[in-house]
Amino acid sequence: MRRAKEGPDNRSKEPGADFLQLDIGDAPVRGRTQWLAERLRLAIADGRLPVGSTLPASRRLAADLGVSRGVVTDAYQRLAEAGHVTGNGRGGTTVVSAPALPRPEPPPAGPPSSSALFGPAPPGADIFDRLRTTPARIDLSPGLPDLAAFPRAAWLRAERTVLNTLEPSAFGYSDPSGAPAVRRSIARWLALNRGIRVDADEVMIVAGVSQALSLIAHVLRQDGITGIAVEDPCSLGIRQHLDYWGMDTPPVRVDGDGVCVEELRATGAKAVVLTPAHQFPTGVVLHGERRRQLSRWAEDGGLIIEDDYDAEHRYDRPPVSALRAALPEHVFYTGSISKLLAPALRLGWLLAPTRYRGDLALAKRNSDLGNAVLPQLVLAELLDSGELERQLRLLRRRHVQRRDVMIKAIADQLPGTVVHGAAAGLHLTLTLAPGVDDVALAAAAFARGVKAHPLSWYGQRPGRPGIVLGYAASPPGDIVEGIAALGAALRGRTGRNQG
Amino acid sequence: MRRAKEGPDNRSKEPGADFLQLDIGDAPVRGRTQWLAERLRLAIADGRLPVGSTLPASRRLAADLGVSRGVVTDAYQRLAEAGHVTGNGRGGTTVVSAPALPRPEPPPAGPPSSSALFGPAPPGADIFDRLRTTPARIDLSPGLPDLAAFPRAAWLRAERTVLNTLEPSAFGYSDPSGAPAVRRSIARWLALNRGIRVDADEVMIVAGVSQALSLIAHVLRQDGITGIAVEDPCSLGIRQHLDYWGMDTPPVRVDGDGVCVEELRATGAKAVVLTPAHQFPTGVVLHGERRRQLSRWAEDGGLIIEDDYDAEHRYDRPPVSALRAALPEHVFYTGSISKLLAPALRLGWLLAPTRYRGDLALAKRNSDLGNAVLPQLVLAELLDSGELERQLRLLRRRHVQRRDVMIKAIADQLPGTVVHGAAAGLHLTLTLAPGVDDVALAAAAFARGVKAHPLSWYGQRPGRPGIVLGYAASPPGDIVEGIAALGAALRGRTGRNQG
Repeated sequence: MRRAKEGPDNRSKEPGADFLQLDIGDAPVRGRTQWLAERLRLAIADGRLPVGSTLPASRRLAADLGVSRGVVTDAYQRLAEAGHVTGNGRGGTTVVSAPALPRPEPPPAGPPSSSALFGPAPPGADIFDRLRTTPARIDLSPGLPDLAAFPRAAWLRAERTVLNTLEPSAFGYSDPSGAPAVRRSIARWLALNRGIRVDADEVMIVAGVSQALSLIAHVLRQDGITGIAVEDPCSLGIRQHLDYWGMDTPPVRVDGDGVCVEELRATGAKAVVLTPAHQFPTGVVLHGERRRQLSRWAEDGGLIIEDDYDAEHRYDRPPVSALRAALPEHVFYTGSISKLLAPALRLGWLLAPTRYRGDLALAKRNSDLGNAVLPQLVLAELLDSGELERQLRLLRRRHVQRRDVMIKAIADQLPGTVVHGAAAGLHLTLTLAPGVDDVALAAAAFARGVKAHPLSWYGQRPGRPGIVLGYAASPPGDIVEGIAALGAALRGRTGRNQG
Repeated sequence: MRRAKEGPDNRSKEPGADFLQLDIGDAPVRGRTQWLAERLRLAIADGRLPVGSTLPASRRLAADLGVSRGVVTDAYQRLAEAGHVTGNGRGGTTVVSAPALPRPEPPPAGPPSSSALFGPAPPGADIFDRLRTTPARIDLSPGLPDLAAFPRAAWLRAERTVLNTLEPSAFGYSDPSGAPAVRRSIARWLALNRGIRVDADEVMIVAGVSQALSLIAHVLRQDGITGIAVEDPCSLGIRQHLDYWGMDTPPVRVDGDGVCVEELRATGAKAVVLTPAHQFPTGVVLHGERRRQLSRWAEDGGLIIEDDYDAEHRYDRPPVSALRAALPEHVFYTGSISKLLAPALRLGWLLAPTRYRGDLALAKRNSDLGNAVLPQLVLAELLDSGELERQLRLLRRRHVQRRDVMIKAIADQLPGTVVHGAAAGLHLTLTLAPGVDDVALAAAAFARGVKAHPLSWYGQRPGRPGIVLGYAASPPGDIVEGIAALGAALRGRTGRNQG
């Protein structure tokens, strides 16, 4: 055996730090102190060593560079004399001032104004980033569970259990479609809570419903499908998402019985995204006859993407069974823990018709090699130990209370409006008298410190004006105050005092 | 205000469980026990309630359904009499036998044979899944750090710190490009360890290098680029990945000085993936004159995707600076913690030329709305506390020891071979005498219980035969035994005893 030449070998025998990429081979033998001081000065000047950062201990840096310790302490001393560092005692040597102009900070962008958020133009691709980065005293945006209820202690306990029992090999690359343990746990959860019978290996773990839609759009496009119909109104995020991946999104009307299947058929679309258990945002349940029509449409070749986004959150109505349970070979079924635990976990699942499963697994592999394993296993632990069911019961109690507070506040403050979708979910939709400009109303509420979404954002065609109001994430006091502000905004705009 | 009709309202006032989607409204009033027993029997039969599972406490299920407890205990009693459940005491009621044929388990696929893994055909898209699910006594596949060294206690400590200090709002939707805290920490890490000066908001958090490549392929395609050149040989996974996303991958030769820039120019490709610090798999460093040629190619409009996959792992050579440090507007720079902590974390970063940053942020948003937040914040904590640097020092010591064990074993067992790339990284590449069939050799080694990759898998054109050997993830004893088996396989195949 011989070893191929690989540049300057064995210059330092020990593994060294890569602090600032310093290579003592660049330094003149008789000018190492000056060389080192200069390199450090440059790093302080250009921000690689920002003010407040600590230099390595002189002994360690000397060992790493393969120089005597005196070279390092002398270099530090020069910087100290120039006023750039201080300390040098046990607390370490700290950068206190930069010698030249550091890179200028970009000017702060500042939050958008209420007119920028709620303007006459339809919301653009950046609307959710703008909403997120725009503070409001009270946030009644829909789509969030009670985030203060996140079970931090249970999560940490479950993570400890996982870390204590994991084989080292589990830290390597794993099945891109998900860890077997969590796929089993979710199959069980879906059987018990959603009436869906599915084998664990049919469950694909994804980074939430948004990734499920990306993957589905990709495999449908491979299949020649260029449009996916959506409910009108529907989630703005989902519509933007499908747009981004090049899909047309023909709108299909939703009335009091759910999506209008004849209108769906008339679009000619081969696929549709539906929220049958609790239509977003109207809250309508897909009823018997419409379900039968939809089954016929699916059996004629239509593909249904069932976004079961908040199905576990039902209050005073019987459960609505998932379409997937009845039509396994016609339905892509997707859900997530965003509404059960937290959107920040980016963890969801996808069930697909048999013929698409292989393509989806390949798309997931080539997107990211699979979700992070630890959170998957922590979720499995929470599911198997009953912790997630306890969390759901806790959330239901809190959400029902908050919902009732909101309904009462609306009755007090917004007479003449109609509340929709209260029997389930995390939000209400309020419809207003025809002719009210709901975007202007949302802008006026925002000016009073309350964030809520105009219903017209969700529609592709003109519809009844309204406001979509999340109640789950806000404490009751905020809800009362927020609805009062909305009422004041409405009275201020219409000029009539309806109180 | 009035409330829109939403189906059977107020049937049960309390939030209820969705256990098996039971709706007591479906039951005849005088036949509820039988109805419930039948529903449970069906669920046991079809596997929704598998053998070993526990039924809800009778008191709770009765409350959820809005029936008297006697209805539930009677139904449980019937199932017990039929032999399907047992218990009913404090331990709960457990399913012990299924009344009808449960859904048949699919026949076990079984691991592929060595000839299926290492056959004459080039490896297909499923090769990594096949390798992962095929056990071997000793695994010398490249690409993994010492997984047993994962700092479980430090990870858990950092997670506790994060969970103790997080605002509830942090559990909601967040910036799809990454949590600010970890972007700052990584900017600092890259400045100190890779000489890269970058603002925190230029760092995008991604699910590893694989997702970085997906996103880059997507935005380059939007820009009309249909091919990305790759080194020859290069990572098989990366080449498959680019293929999947519709990119041509013209090969560019790598010699002892790195990638051949004139050949790159001749391909006409507008972009190239490079591993300049430690070419994968040959281990070559991109040297001075080639770097200058490459800079000129980039300044003429070429885009470089710098996969800095194992740059922190260097042993007996000075650091090799990142191309990104010198050519920020021509280089997409990507790295991950897969080789520092664990691939299972799926956490990496991407820096991009200014003009691509907005498009990449949009692609990331529409792919998955961003990485999970908790692991990002845990990583930030590990970076800021110095824990990751300690981990790197620990890994370096272990890896150097294992590398040296492997080099000695190769000298003992495989004279006549040449070792490449030993000064850095997590693997060695061994080249063999011309004419040796390296795939057949890998198959023979596999038959002796040792997994390693033939070098020819990585090349698009015929090249020197060889074996790519990971040393970082295996204890020294396994390395010695594995190399001995490889030596025996080589002698067995060539018929010469070279010992």
